[in-house]
Amino acid sequence: MPTVIQYLLDRLKQLGIRDVFGVPGDFAFPINNAICDDKELHWIGCCNELNAAYAADGYARIKGMSALSTTFGVGELSTLCGIAGSYAEYDLIFHIVGMPKMQAQKRHDIVHHSLGDGESSVFMEMAAPVVCASTMLTPENCVQEVERVIETGLENRRPVYIAIPHDYVNAKISSFNAPARKPVKSDPATLEEVVSIIEGKLSNSKQACIMPGFLVDRFGIKDLAMAVINVSGLPYVTMALDKSVLDETNPSYLGLYMGQLINPEIREFVESCDCILAIGTIPSDVNMGMFTAKLDKSRIINIMPSSVHIGRTDYINVKMLDVLEELTRRLNKRTDIRGPLARRPAIPRVNAEDPITADYLYSKYAEFFKPDDIIVADSTSSFYGLLPLFLPKGVKFQNQILWGAIGWATPASFGTALAAPDRRVILITGEGSHQMTAQEISQFYRYGLKPIIFVLNNQGYLIEKMLSKKLDYCYNDLAEWQYYKLPEVLGRNEWITKKVTTCEELDKVMKELDNAKTGAYIEVVTPKLSAPPLMETIHKNL
Amino acid sequence: MPTVIQYLLDRLKQLGIRDVFGVPGDFAFPINNAICDDKELHWIGCCNELNAAYAADGYARIKGMSALSTTFGVGELSTLCGIAGSYAEYDLIFHIVGMPKMQAQKRHDIVHHSLGDGESSVFMEMAAPVVCASTMLTPENCVQEVERVIETGLENRRPVYIAIPHDYVNAKISSFNAPARKPVKSDPATLEEVVSIIEGKLSNSKQACIMPGFLVDRFGIKDLAMAVINVSGLPYVTMALDKSVLDETNPSYLGLYMGQLINPEIREFVESCDCILAIGTIPSDVNMGMFTAKLDKSRIINIMPSSVHIGRTDYINVKMLDVLEELTRRLNKRTDIRGPLARRPAIPRVNAEDPITADYLYSKYAEFFKPDDIIVADSTSSFYGLLPLFLPKGVKFQNQILWGAIGWATPASFGTALAAPDRRVILITGEGSHQMTAQEISQFYRYGLKPIIFVLNNQGYLIEKMLSKKLDYCYNDLAEWQYYKLPEVLGRNEWITKKVTTCEELDKVMKELDNAKTGAYIEVVTPKLSAPPLMETIHKNL
Repeated sequence: MPTVIQYLLDRLKQLGIRDVFGVPGDFAFPINNAICDDKELHWIGCCNELNAAYAADGYARIKGMSALSTTFGVGELSTLCGIAGSYAEYDLIFHIVGMPKMQAQKRHDIVHHSLGDGESSVFMEMAAPVVCASTMLTPENCVQEVERVIETGLENRRPVYIAIPHDYVNAKISSFNAPARKPVKSDPATLEEVVSIIEGKLSNSKQACIMPGFLVDRFGIKDLAMAVINVSGLPYVTMALDKSVLDETNPSYLGLYMGQLINPEIREFVESCDCILAIGTIPSDVNMGMFTAKLDKSRIINIMPSSVHIGRTDYINVKMLDVLEELTRRLNKRTDIRGPLARRPAIPRVNAEDPITADYLYSKYAEFFKPDDIIVADSTSSFYGLLPLFLPKGVKFQNQILWGAIGWATPASFGTALAAPDRRVILITGEGSHQMTAQEISQFYRYGLKPIIFVLNNQGYLIEKMLSKKLDYCYNDLAEWQYYKLPEVLGRNEWITKKVTTCEELDKVMKELDNAKTGAYIEVVTPKLSAPPLMETIHKNL
Repeated sequence: MPTVIQYLLDRLKQLGIRDVFGVPGDFAFPINNAICDDKELHWIGCCNELNAAYAADGYARIKGMSALSTTFGVGELSTLCGIAGSYAEYDLIFHIVGMPKMQAQKRHDIVHHSLGDGESSVFMEMAAPVVCASTMLTPENCVQEVERVIETGLENRRPVYIAIPHDYVNAKISSFNAPARKPVKSDPATLEEVVSIIEGKLSNSKQACIMPGFLVDRFGIKDLAMAVINVSGLPYVTMALDKSVLDETNPSYLGLYMGQLINPEIREFVESCDCILAIGTIPSDVNMGMFTAKLDKSRIINIMPSSVHIGRTDYINVKMLDVLEELTRRLNKRTDIRGPLARRPAIPRVNAEDPITADYLYSKYAEFFKPDDIIVADSTSSFYGLLPLFLPKGVKFQNQILWGAIGWATPASFGTALAAPDRRVILITGEGSHQMTAQEISQFYRYGLKPIIFVLNNQGYLIEKMLSKKLDYCYNDLAEWQYYKLPEVLGRNEWITKKVTTCEELDKVMKELDNAKTGAYIEVVTPKLSAPPLMETIHKNL
C-alpha cells in the first residue's frame, strides 16, 4: 500500500503536475520532504504564501491546473486572497496544507500557528467559501477523498483544499476502495432542447453575434468555441475579462464591447442584436462597462460550464463541451451578418524628448507585441490602456479583472513564465501594484527565467485617482522607490535594466528588447496623471 | 446628526486613535476620504494589506489598540493572516472595511473584488473566527453597533471587524438610541472565593513562584502585576511568549522557564514548586518547551482576563484586574523563598577576522541593547538566540511566537516605530522572514522614522533546518538578495547600511550605531548552520 502523500502526489502527477509552489513550514515538513524527494516533482519556493498562490494561479492559466503547498494557519491564511481570486476566475489549484498531528488535534494541544484555543479545523472552515472542495486526508479516507476532490476540481476548475495531519502524511493508506466515479454528463433531453433553441434563435435572428468568454479558455475548449464561430458565420466581440480568449486577428473579430465606455460602433451593433450567443462569460461590472451596457437579457444566451441560460430560463445538467460540439454539427452558416470593426488607435506623433504619455506608451506596446507572447497585466490603469489593442495571433493576455487584486501580476507572471518557458512573457504592472509583491521578481533569476518587465512609475495609484472624482487624496501616494535598481538587489545584474522618461528612450529600449536574449526590467516614467483614454472616460462617467 | 463614518471616527478618536493603517480601494474611498479629511487623523499607507495588518499589530502592542482600513474582498482577505495573529496574541485592531453599495448588494450585482456570484457577505463570514466582534454598519444601527463592537474589543483586546457599505459611509445616522452599556464586572462572591483560595495556597506553599504572562501587557496592568509580585515576596520567571513583560533587572526575576530546553536550575525550581501563580499565560507548545515542561496542573493557578483557573477548576466572571487589585491588598509577604538565577551567557572569545557565529552575535546584542529599547523579533532562529538574554530596564521585546507568522516583524517594527517615535526600535529578523515583507522598510523613510534593522543572512531558513532532522532539504533555500542594498532602492541613502561578515566588522558597526542619529540597516552574515544554543537543543530533542 502507498502512503497518503504518495497516493496524492502520484495522482497529481498523473494529471500532469510537475511543479509545486509554496513556502515550507514545520507542520508541512513531511509534505515538503515528499515533494523534494520525488524525482518527477519540483519544489518552487516563493517569498511568501500570497505570492505563491498568485504564482500558482498564473501557472494554472497556462497549464490548466497547478499545485501549492503551505503550512497550517499562518501559511494557508496568507494565501486566501490569492485562492479567492482563483475561485472567482476559475483556476484549478490543488492546495495541500500541512496540519498538526491528529493526536495533538484530538488532545487540543495549543500549538504554534493556532489561535491559542486548541482548535485546528477553523482554518479549513475559513477557506471553504473559496474552494470547490475541501478535505482532511486520513489513511482510511485517502483514496476516496483524493478521487472526490480531484473530480470536483476538474469539473469546476476551481481551487481544492487538501489538508493532511503531520502524522498521516507518511502513513500507509488502509483502504483502497474508491467508489467508481463517472464524469457528470449532459442530460440528453435537456441538451437536445437547448441546442434546438439556440439553433432556431440564431437562424431566425435579424442580427446576431457571438461573445466568447474566459471560461472557454479555462475549460480548455478554445478550438471548439472557434469552430462554433466558424460554422455560425457570425462576427464576435469580447468583453474585458475575456480579452484574447480567441484570435484577435480573425476577420470576424470586431473588437472590445464595454457598454458606453468605448467603441460606439460596436456598442451600437451589439446592443441592437436580437440574439447574442455568449459562451462562458460573466456579466460583471467591468465587463458591463461599469454597468453602462444596455443588454436586453431576453436576447442573450449564455453557455456556462454546466448550465445554459437562455433569456430568463436556466437549463441545468448540460455541459458546455456537449453544447458546443452539437452546435458545430447543427448550426447553419449565416453569411448575411457583418459588424463594424473597432477603430485601432494610431501611434501619436511625438518629439524625441517628449515625456511618455499614456497614449504613446500603449500604442508602442501594440507595436512591441509579437505572436504567441504572453502578456500579464495587473488590474490597474495599464489594463485599461492595453484593453483596446488588437493583439497578434496566439497572444495570451493574462488578467484578473474580476477579482482585481492588484499585485497579482508580478508573481502570476513568474508562474506563467515557469509554465511556458519557451514563450516570451511580458509583465506590465504599475508601481502601486508592484510594491505589493515586488520581491517575487527574485524567483525569475533563481529559476532561470527571462521575462520582460515594464513597471509604470507615475507617482501613485493612478487607477485609484481616476476612479475618484477628486484626484489628489493623500492615500494615493506611495513610498518612492528606485524601481529599476530592484533587479540588481534581488537578483543579479545580467538583465537589461533601464529607467525611461522620454519617448526616444522608450523607443530605444523597445528596439533593444526586440532582440534581447536576457530578461529585462524597464521602469517607465510617465506624467503623474497621464491616463489611457478608456480610463479617462471611466473618470468622466463617475 | 453625524454621518456613519463621522460617528465611528469620532469614537475611535475618543479612544486615542490618531493613525489608520491601510491600503485604499474604490469600495473604501469614502472611508479613505474621511480619514484623509480629518485633521486629527493620519492615513498610514502600506505596500500591501497583510503588511498593513502587521504594522497595525505592532502599533497596538505599544498603544493598546490600532486602526486599519482595507477594501472589500481583495483587501480584507489579504489581512487575514495578520488579523488571526492579532486575535491569537490579543491585539485590538479596529478593521474598517469598505463594502459595495447596499443597493448593489441587494440587487446581487456582480462587482469586482467579488467571487462573481453576486454575494457580498461571504468575506465578513470568513473573518468571523479571527475577530471578537463584527458588524456591518447602517444609518439605523450605527450608534448601537459601534458601541457594541468597541466595548467587545476593549473587553477582549482582540480584533474587531467593521464593514460599511459604500453608500452608507456618508449617510446621516437615523437613530441615536444606544443602549446604556455597563462594563462587565467581577461577580463579588466568585472574586472573594478566588482571592481567598489564592491567598491560602500562596501562604501555605512550601515553594512557590509567579509566572507573569503577556496578557498582563496586553490588558495594560503591568504595574499591578509587579505590585502583586512585590507584595508576595515571591520570585518570578517568564515563558517564551511572555519575555520582557516585567522588568528583567529585578532581583526577584530568575529568568526563562522553558521546560527541559534551557536553564536546568530554573526548571528544577519551577517544577518542584507546589504552587505556581501564572497571570495571563497560555500553555502553548513553545511556552512549554516543545512540551518538555513537566508542570502538574493541580499546582497551577492561572489568572486570565475574565476567568481564573485553579488546578482543574475554572472560575468565570472574575476579571484579572479585580483579582490582582485584591491580591495586592491581601497577600502576605513571603521572605523565605528564593530561586536560582539563570546563568547569563558570556561573550565568547574571538579573533577579529573570525566569522560571526550565533554565540557571538547574540551576546553582542545583549551588550548593544539599552534601557527602553523596543526590540521586534521574528519567530525565527534569532528569536531563540534573544530569548535567554537578560534585557535592560524598560526594554520591550515584541515577538509573535504563538501565531509565529514569519515576516511579521518587518512591518510590525514599522508600526512600533510609528507608535513610539521617541524610543529606539530595533528590528531583528532573518532573511527568509524578511523576504516575505521586506518592501515595508520603505515606509520608515516615508514617515521619517529611524529604526535599527539587523537582517541575518545565513543562506536559507535556518529555523526550518533546525526543526527538521535532515538539514539540507531544497525547500529551505532562498533566492539570493543583496540585502544591504535594499534601503538605497526602497528609500534614500541616508541610513547607515552595511554588510558585516567578521566579528570585528560587527563590533565596529555596533559602536557606530551606538551614537547614530539616523536609521540603519545591517546585513549580518553568519556561517550557514550557526544556530543559537537553544535552537541546537531543540534540534537535538527532535
